Amino acid sequence: MELLKERIRRDGTVKGNDVLKVDSFLNHQMDVALFEEIGREFLRRFDGCGVNKILTIEASGIGIACVTAQFFRCPVIFAKKSQTKNIAGAVYTTKVESFTHGRVYDVIVSKKFLGAEDNVLIIDDFLANGAALEGLIDLVEQSGARLAGAGVVIEKAFQPGGERLRARGIRVEALARVRSMSEETGVEFAD
Amino acid sequence: MELLKERIRRDGTVKGNDVLKVDSFLNHQMDVALFEEIGREFLRRFDGCGVNKILTIEASGIGIACVTAQFFRCPVIFAKKSQTKNIAGAVYTTKVESFTHGRVYDVIVSKKFLGAEDNVLIIDDFLANGAALEGLIDLVEQSGARLAGAGVVIEKAFQPGGERLRARGIRVEALARVRSMSEETGVEFAD
Repeated sequence: MELLKERIRRDGTVKGNDVLKVDSFLNHQMDVALFEEIGREFLRRFDGCGVNKILTIEASGIGIACVTAQFFRCPVIFAKKSQTKNIAGAVYTTKVESFTHGRVYDVIVSKKFLGAEDNVLIIDDFLANGAALEGLIDLVEQSGARLAGAGVVIEKAFQPGGERLRARGIRVEALARVRSMSEETGVEFAD
Repeated sequence: MELLKERIRRDGTVKGNDVLKVDSFLNHQMDVALFEEIGREFLRRFDGCGVNKILTIEASGIGIACVTAQFFRCPVIFAKKSQTKNIAGAVYTTKVESFTHGRVYDVIVSKKFLGAEDNVLIIDDFLANGAALEGLIDLVEQSGARLAGAGVVIEKAFQPGGERLRARGIRVEALARVRSMSEETGVEFAD
């Protein structure tokens, strides 16, 4: 998605060799006009797949997922990172290791909202090691729902998550795939 | 907002005398078609106020804020509940007590994204004790930005947050104000 790559080149900042800061438009300040183009592109790629639910994980996937869901005309479920007293009853649960936060989260989705009748598109902002997506896929599998695929805004293609997921036969669509990056040369895209 | 009240009556569940579960459409599964009507209503109430940034707090405010921002044609900033290594540099910081989670969070916004030139609308899903909104207002005040007001989807008007904020002269718009509720009689609205 050329518009997105241009935005990453212009406003993204590389820290070291593995942190790509896009907090001015994607995951702290959020450019919802860009999100509309992202949602339109996810629909183009997954149109006709019969998606009836979008699943994401808090927090930075939620905005992208909600704007994308407007194009699919379906609800969003966001997986929660810890059990609160406001989610009663039965939940699907899995564990996700966050490399950003250096800890493992219990991640839950209420059983009320995912089941065998659903056809799920997973949406998230980043794919790197794949831990978050693998956790969400585990939740979908527990529910018996069909998985249409996963759409991520930015894939760090030099990290193993995307390859591992595609090797499992999961359709993963990344709107910008970063082949390599450094503070000196910036971001190089894979395609 | 009658559509919202009808939805709360139909799909909301009261637990005890103070928990209103709306997780089937507002803060776990999210009905983005309803969010569009919510965003349209927030625009109707705050139109002409010159809002150029919407501020919310992770996680459940983000989806509502993003869809609302499409109507205001402005970006969203979500305040983060803990410092991660992906937010470098200077941040505004405050503390917010979560009654749902029974703990106090450090809440931060990067100084890059809020300043004296901004005119901020705060958006959140619930107003009860007011702790989250007070934290967000503190962040706006630290930044020197103007505060246009706060828009919340559901106010528990029997808890003190809304009254305390309005007594400070802050414009608070709640789309559904719950006067009282119980498991036996359900939800009664204030207006």
